[in-house]
Amino acid sequence: MFNNIRIVLSHTTHPGNIGAAARAMKTMGLRQLYLINPRHFPDPQAEAMAAGADDVLHNAVVCTSIDEALQGVAFTVAMTARLRDISIEVQTPREAMPQVLQQAATQPVALLFGTEMSGLTNEEMGKAQLGVNIPANPEFSSLNIAAAVQVMAYELSVAAQNFVPGFQEVQPAPYERVEGLYAHLERTLFEIGFFTTQNPARLMQRLRRLFARARLEEEEINILRGILTVTTEYNARLKKRYSEEHPDVR
Amino acid sequence: MFNNIRIVLSHTTHPGNIGAAARAMKTMGLRQLYLINPRHFPDPQAEAMAAGADDVLHNAVVCTSIDEALQGVAFTVAMTARLRDISIEVQTPREAMPQVLQQAATQPVALLFGTEMSGLTNEEMGKAQLGVNIPANPEFSSLNIAAAVQVMAYELSVAAQNFVPGFQEVQPAPYERVEGLYAHLERTLFEIGFFTTQNPARLMQRLRRLFARARLEEEEINILRGILTVTTEYNARLKKRYSEEHPDVR
Repeated sequence: MFNNIRIVLSHTTHPGNIGAAARAMKTMGLRQLYLINPRHFPDPQAEAMAAGADDVLHNAVVCTSIDEALQGVAFTVAMTARLRDISIEVQTPREAMPQVLQQAATQPVALLFGTEMSGLTNEEMGKAQLGVNIPANPEFSSLNIAAAVQVMAYELSVAAQNFVPGFQEVQPAPYERVEGLYAHLERTLFEIGFFTTQNPARLMQRLRRLFARARLEEEEINILRGILTVTTEYNARLKKRYSEEHPDVR
Repeated sequence: MFNNIRIVLSHTTHPGNIGAAARAMKTMGLRQLYLINPRHFPDPQAEAMAAGADDVLHNAVVCTSIDEALQGVAFTVAMTARLRDISIEVQTPREAMPQVLQQAATQPVALLFGTEMSGLTNEEMGKAQLGVNIPANPEFSSLNIAAAVQVMAYELSVAAQNFVPGFQEVQPAPYERVEGLYAHLERTLFEIGFFTTQNPARLMQRLRRLFARARLEEEEINILRGILTVTTEYNARLKKRYSEEHPDVR
């Protein structure tokens, strides 16, 4: 089950934090570490802080984009220090774990951590189906990133002890298929002229939120993309007929 | 309630860990940091790792002995990475928290963390009423000390959200009173010649374990010490009479 769970650290600034995160992971039995554009890696500070978890460090997958890091992932949890302005549902670690474990029983799951200074970008948040906020002191809520990894790994490990995988109602499609739908949807909405009266970025965020809640399956994505394709074709046919009937209008 | 909870770090080697522990504490609303003989403190590395929790660091109480650090404490929890050879009851963080909060509602409580390399000594463990082990990967169970502080502070904070103090059945006596009893008991057992056939250290550990489970109250300590005093006096009277009746025996 834990083999299906990857910790994804995006644009980590301090290599010591990567090492400390690797150590935190290993203490709880997690091993899959993905790094998106770390500022310094590999690095002696990372090795020093890993303190025996150097195998996790050496097997870390360094990626150049979030798309690469989430390839094949069916369920992405985005860590957030903020509770407001979040485009997706936010739960506590304890609330989220049964769902994480349920998904990880059959498919790859990612826990996504942002940079030390500013966390995840809105774009990164939008790639996730669920947000998780570690409840903290409102006057000082900035957990160190490795400390946050430790809390999440610990909660996972405790939850796993009593976890029995239930019947999986939904088999969510992998990351790249969901993103493919969003791209198709956005393209289509542009083509049919929907965005002329709407803010595209904001609207796409709301649509992502809707579909994140739904946890789309492959088959559903196929249906939706089929609708989009037909829509575009219909639109193209309309345009064609219009231009035939009004050859003077360009 | 959290004002009654002190984090006690014994003989910490790396000042960076002290800073990271201070940060971990503050994120969860804990502020009382006690340091027993830290190798380097204050130290720029501690400041750097505290990252905004420098107030916790600056208010840290530096002690030269565990007795000093536990002065006034009614309930001490000792962190341990080992499950075997422990002279006290051991629980998980989640199991322990209701008890910790219950005690902290009225009296000072200490969470005691050992050194990076070897944890707490047996002597230090013996000062606690409860052991807590963070369940970890059996093949790699060494949590960083600040990571362990983060997990404990987090569990405390989560538990505190739903905590309603119950009726406190026992009002445990403060640390120094309990230690006073142990010293009195040990002295008495020596005087009455009990230790001639027993290993004193091992027996005292077993007695500590018994009384740790009982959570002695002031009044009970008074009674027990009263018994000890009378025992010694009785013993002294016996000796006196014996020497009077047998003036030739020395």
